[in-house]
Amino acid sequence: MITISGGITAPKGFKTAGIHCGVKDNFTTPQPDKLDLAMVLSEVPCTAAGTYTRNVVKADPVILSMQYLADGKAQGIIADSGNANACAPKGMENAIRMANAAAAATGLQPQDFAVCSTGIIGVELNIDAIEKGIPTLVSQLASDAASSDNAAHAIMTTDLKKKEIAVRTEIGGKTVTVGGIAKGSGMIHPNMGTMLCFVTTDCAIDGALLQSMLKEVVNKTFNRVTVDGDTSTNDTCIVLANGLAENPVITGPGADYDAFFEALRAVCEYEAKMIAGDGEGASHLLTCTVQGAATEEKAEFMAKAVVRSPLVKCAIYGADANWGRVLCAIGYSGAEFDPKAVEVKFRSQAGELLVCTGGQGVVFDENMATKVLSEEEVEVLVTLTEGQASCSCWGCDLTYDYVKINGDYRS
Amino acid sequence: MITISGGITAPKGFKTAGIHCGVKDNFTTPQPDKLDLAMVLSEVPCTAAGTYTRNVVKADPVILSMQYLADGKAQGIIADSGNANACAPKGMENAIRMANAAAAATGLQPQDFAVCSTGIIGVELNIDAIEKGIPTLVSQLASDAASSDNAAHAIMTTDLKKKEIAVRTEIGGKTVTVGGIAKGSGMIHPNMGTMLCFVTTDCAIDGALLQSMLKEVVNKTFNRVTVDGDTSTNDTCIVLANGLAENPVITGPGADYDAFFEALRAVCEYEAKMIAGDGEGASHLLTCTVQGAATEEKAEFMAKAVVRSPLVKCAIYGADANWGRVLCAIGYSGAEFDPKAVEVKFRSQAGELLVCTGGQGVVFDENMATKVLSEEEVEVLVTLTEGQASCSCWGCDLTYDYVKINGDYRS
Repeated sequence: MITISGGITAPKGFKTAGIHCGVKDNFTTPQPDKLDLAMVLSEVPCTAAGTYTRNVVKADPVILSMQYLADGKAQGIIADSGNANACAPKGMENAIRMANAAAAATGLQPQDFAVCSTGIIGVELNIDAIEKGIPTLVSQLASDAASSDNAAHAIMTTDLKKKEIAVRTEIGGKTVTVGGIAKGSGMIHPNMGTMLCFVTTDCAIDGALLQSMLKEVVNKTFNRVTVDGDTSTNDTCIVLANGLAENPVITGPGADYDAFFEALRAVCEYEAKMIAGDGEGASHLLTCTVQGAATEEKAEFMAKAVVRSPLVKCAIYGADANWGRVLCAIGYSGAEFDPKAVEVKFRSQAGELLVCTGGQGVVFDENMATKVLSEEEVEVLVTLTEGQASCSCWGCDLTYDYVKINGDYRS
Repeated sequence: MITISGGITAPKGFKTAGIHCGVKDNFTTPQPDKLDLAMVLSEVPCTAAGTYTRNVVKADPVILSMQYLADGKAQGIIADSGNANACAPKGMENAIRMANAAAAATGLQPQDFAVCSTGIIGVELNIDAIEKGIPTLVSQLASDAASSDNAAHAIMTTDLKKKEIAVRTEIGGKTVTVGGIAKGSGMIHPNMGTMLCFVTTDCAIDGALLQSMLKEVVNKTFNRVTVDGDTSTNDTCIVLANGLAENPVITGPGADYDAFFEALRAVCEYEAKMIAGDGEGASHLLTCTVQGAATEEKAEFMAKAVVRSPLVKCAIYGADANWGRVLCAIGYSGAEFDPKAVEVKFRSQAGELLVCTGGQGVVFDENMATKVLSEEEVEVLVTLTEGQASCSCWGCDLTYDYVKINGDYRS
């Protein structure tokens, strides 16, 4: 498996585009230079799978997409950024109008589209701007890398970095490509934060299998990311698989299944880490790995508690080797363990530092600690002595800018 | 029941003192003007009850106090601030030395004391300073209001406000007084944050009954507070009841039980709200009340999710009426409810503002919203239509100062 350029247009038979239509003009400070409408379209009908927020309060486009994709089939995605169309007047009506407009402009059926929205909650969607923009959007659909770049930008809200990747592998003697774009930032937490992720692939795979595989992959990637513990109303991860790679259709376990699983996992893990590192206001990507645990589930509980802890997050921001907060976080994670058998290290490109062994602090070089923790990517490594299972979870530090961004998001 | 002055020395037969012994000198910036050692002592043996952190990683003084108070008896409390003696070298040894020194200076047994510590984790306690300070501390024990004030200050870490109260009521024809001091600030979350609360009372009450009552009261007060979702290694709430009010011993349900319950609840609720409003960096006390719920448990789930949400907390800091984040938070709280039957109001001394009804936003006056949300105490009122149960939980906003304080707590 290799990483290649091209994003979601790297797989055969996909076109995409991203434009500014005006959704982002409804802020106090309009953003006419920001893209806010994206479409992804396959040349042929696709096997489609989706995972959605588990929030009881689901945005209407999420409910609609769940309905439209219930048959495991789709051909495209229409998405806006700037307005989540959640708890908003005319929410379902406007979500349907988005799908209808996408269908009218492409000659497809509304049910062929997933509809996604991200942005402010509770404000009526500027559906007129979207309906007006969709024909332009469709006219710009193309399969070049620049189009994927535009689409990746058009789904961003407070994201600072584009989140795009493609990987290529061989399955059944054929070249299979998987591409992805994503957006994240605030309200990121296990069970899907305000994150959108659109994955395209030319792999041929059975629909039910793709759905179950996606669920497993999302559990091991996006659901191991937390920015602030808030789970959004709009989270959605959609995979469109059009089969144009002409590999033998994957219908069950085996080498082909494993190869595609790895490619899908690689795309989703990349996007998950990008989302974590680009959390609102973040200056560090924080990874916590728990190893030597009795079960992966327990390791995940503990790792998630660490990357979620506001006190750990503040310490990472301050490059402060405050391992006591790590012990505290694993202690309230819900996992049972022997506090006297815990080792903690901090590590990054600058090196590795042992700070706690046998559940107690060890003397360490504070200058070295500052050096290790000042790197952009920092890992907390917790080692237990009870088994072989391990798990990594991802988050970011908690900074002044997080507070600034979220102290007045609406304006 | 009336509120009176005097704090923990208001009930009959209690003395207290707070001094600077040197625990806080171990910071990069020593704090010689800050009190860091407190003792509470009853003239006679007390019925004692305690609730403790549920963190798997318990500080050694917590473990020791649980042992010493297991018989439901105690006569005093010895506490330091500045060092939590958690995950620290010689943790248990030093906790025992604290109890021994307190016993030696008072002529009591070590088992007569609860031992409490709060502050930095993982650093060896300066037990020499404490042992040297205890005789001075004991020499200053007094039953005046100034001593309670000193003790209240001597258990503070990053707290800005002293948390002290006393209430007086009549039980069985006798005047019964309940006093309390507390400290809170960071790592505050249901299941006890780094909070200490010491309650004194001259009420006569059965030990097992006091323990079960305390548990219920803590569940309805401290466990409804969250500052940052972190549950500390050291949380402790201790009640000493010396019976000097000479009321008929409370041994079961009835009017006397109810009267004392209300007094204890009032003290703990006051301290809980003080802890929430004085959360690290906080500029607002945030209350969320959920009413019209089917069960109190469900209302508590929802209210807790709101006061815990970093996005809601940032919005309150920014005086931003972002009710969408309130809906989002109750949506992921774990409670099932009908999103279309939710009403949300913001209210404070400046007025009340309806922002959401039937699960959707209503047009409101942004100037009025800013006015309501700029008050120091702000309430989010969520009304459901499914029943009669309600619950309030308390928290605070998330500010630049929280990040500042916790980005470099150790120095």
